[in-house]
Amino acid sequence: MDGLTVSTVGQYDLIYNAFSFGIATFAAATLFFWFGLARVSQEYRTAIVITGLVTFIAFYHYFRIFESWQSAYEVSDGAVELTGVAFNEAYRYVDWLLTVPLLLIELILVMRLSQSETVRRSVTLGGAAALMILLGYPGEVSEGIGGSRLLWGVLSMIPFLYIVYSLFSGLSDAIARQPANVRHLVSAARSLTVVVWFFYPIVYFAPFVLPMDGGTAKATIEVGYTLADIFAKAGFGLLIFTIAVRKSEAGH
Amino acid sequence: MDGLTVSTVGQYDLIYNAFSFGIATFAAATLFFWFGLARVSQEYRTAIVITGLVTFIAFYHYFRIFESWQSAYEVSDGAVELTGVAFNEAYRYVDWLLTVPLLLIELILVMRLSQSETVRRSVTLGGAAALMILLGYPGEVSEGIGGSRLLWGVLSMIPFLYIVYSLFSGLSDAIARQPANVRHLVSAARSLTVVVWFFYPIVYFAPFVLPMDGGTAKATIEVGYTLADIFAKAGFGLLIFTIAVRKSEAGH
Repeated sequence: MDGLTVSTVGQYDLIYNAFSFGIATFAAATLFFWFGLARVSQEYRTAIVITGLVTFIAFYHYFRIFESWQSAYEVSDGAVELTGVAFNEAYRYVDWLLTVPLLLIELILVMRLSQSETVRRSVTLGGAAALMILLGYPGEVSEGIGGSRLLWGVLSMIPFLYIVYSLFSGLSDAIARQPANVRHLVSAARSLTVVVWFFYPIVYFAPFVLPMDGGTAKATIEVGYTLADIFAKAGFGLLIFTIAVRKSEAGH
Repeated sequence: MDGLTVSTVGQYDLIYNAFSFGIATFAAATLFFWFGLARVSQEYRTAIVITGLVTFIAFYHYFRIFESWQSAYEVSDGAVELTGVAFNEAYRYVDWLLTVPLLLIELILVMRLSQSETVRRSVTLGGAAALMILLGYPGEVSEGIGGSRLLWGVLSMIPFLYIVYSLFSGLSDAIARQPANVRHLVSAARSLTVVVWFFYPIVYFAPFVLPMDGGTAKATIEVGYTLADIFAKAGFGLLIFTIAVRKSEAGH
């Protein structure tokens, strides 16, 4: 959120601790998924490797975000001051550009569709996800909260809505074909994706409608994005992992 | 591109984020390839180990490039200034000297030619690639955009064109002998190599023909090289990995 800064130590600390929470959660989730590789059969290993890669990439970016946050403020004697070094909000976009297509590919891989359907859906959904992030970025880094943010945000919503539509219409057949012991879990993974993902445009557009001072807005946004990332990547990954384990045990 | 520097925070940040994107992409790609080793049969393991080595070496160099970039500029209060420490463009050449011969060897290994043909093609193509990088380097580090850059650039194009010619004439027979289920993928890997590789001399010679200010040129070059590296190393590696998995599954 360009130009927003915190003004109290409480706000600074809350964001600081949220970022550190992100680092620890994503590191632990990565290790959990990769240690679990031996529990899933050969067909699901790529899905679980990618599940761990998503949290690994998020771990890397939360580490960078944390360092960037530290260098942007000087906290001393109960007061917080800007150092002049800008907090690099763009790390989130770099992260999403890599992880959001991979999240959709995880879901597709764990469904074990035919080779051609896997490739086709990975390319269209992954490509739409990358386009969504690329279109959101110029709005996020534009000066202030104005027309540029609105324009790019609206453009970014086009691939977003396409993805939501694809997940609900296109994948319904494929979900109906899933084995009974995991069908509700695959359906839950899809719902989690859609619900959590809606959080991001809400945060993006919030400054247009909510009357908040800069520091409160900044804390809401950073803590909000962090929690959304944890649900969308580690929480979603846990569903994917459970699906892969159950399908492996049942020999599907 | 010797002597070119950025002048706005936007340019600085774009390059900074591109380098960080490179670090994350190459780290993730390396892990993906090495985790995938178990999915390919014994004959293709060396090709996949090398595929991961290429992205690992690139990961190392992007980490160094990122640090070098940070130390070359002081960014504060919305202004960017040179610190006096030079940005080390040579990391790219050190990287290419190692990775470009290995990329060609990946392609040769995954084709599984006879032992003598594998050795012969690895030595001639790998050697030509190393020569190409060594000849380009004195031009890249020469002062300004002048005769020295032109001379070494032209010399470097001789092994470059030899490699392109070899890939298209010499390897056509070998590609025709590939199993049907991967022939188009091997052909795609060859085409990707040629198309992406042409991007490098275009960037190298661009300052002779394009009227750009230094900062725009620098941003174009650094982001361009980064994207080209990602396609040439991680994207190409993904094709090699897919070929190896399909050939393994089909017992070729």
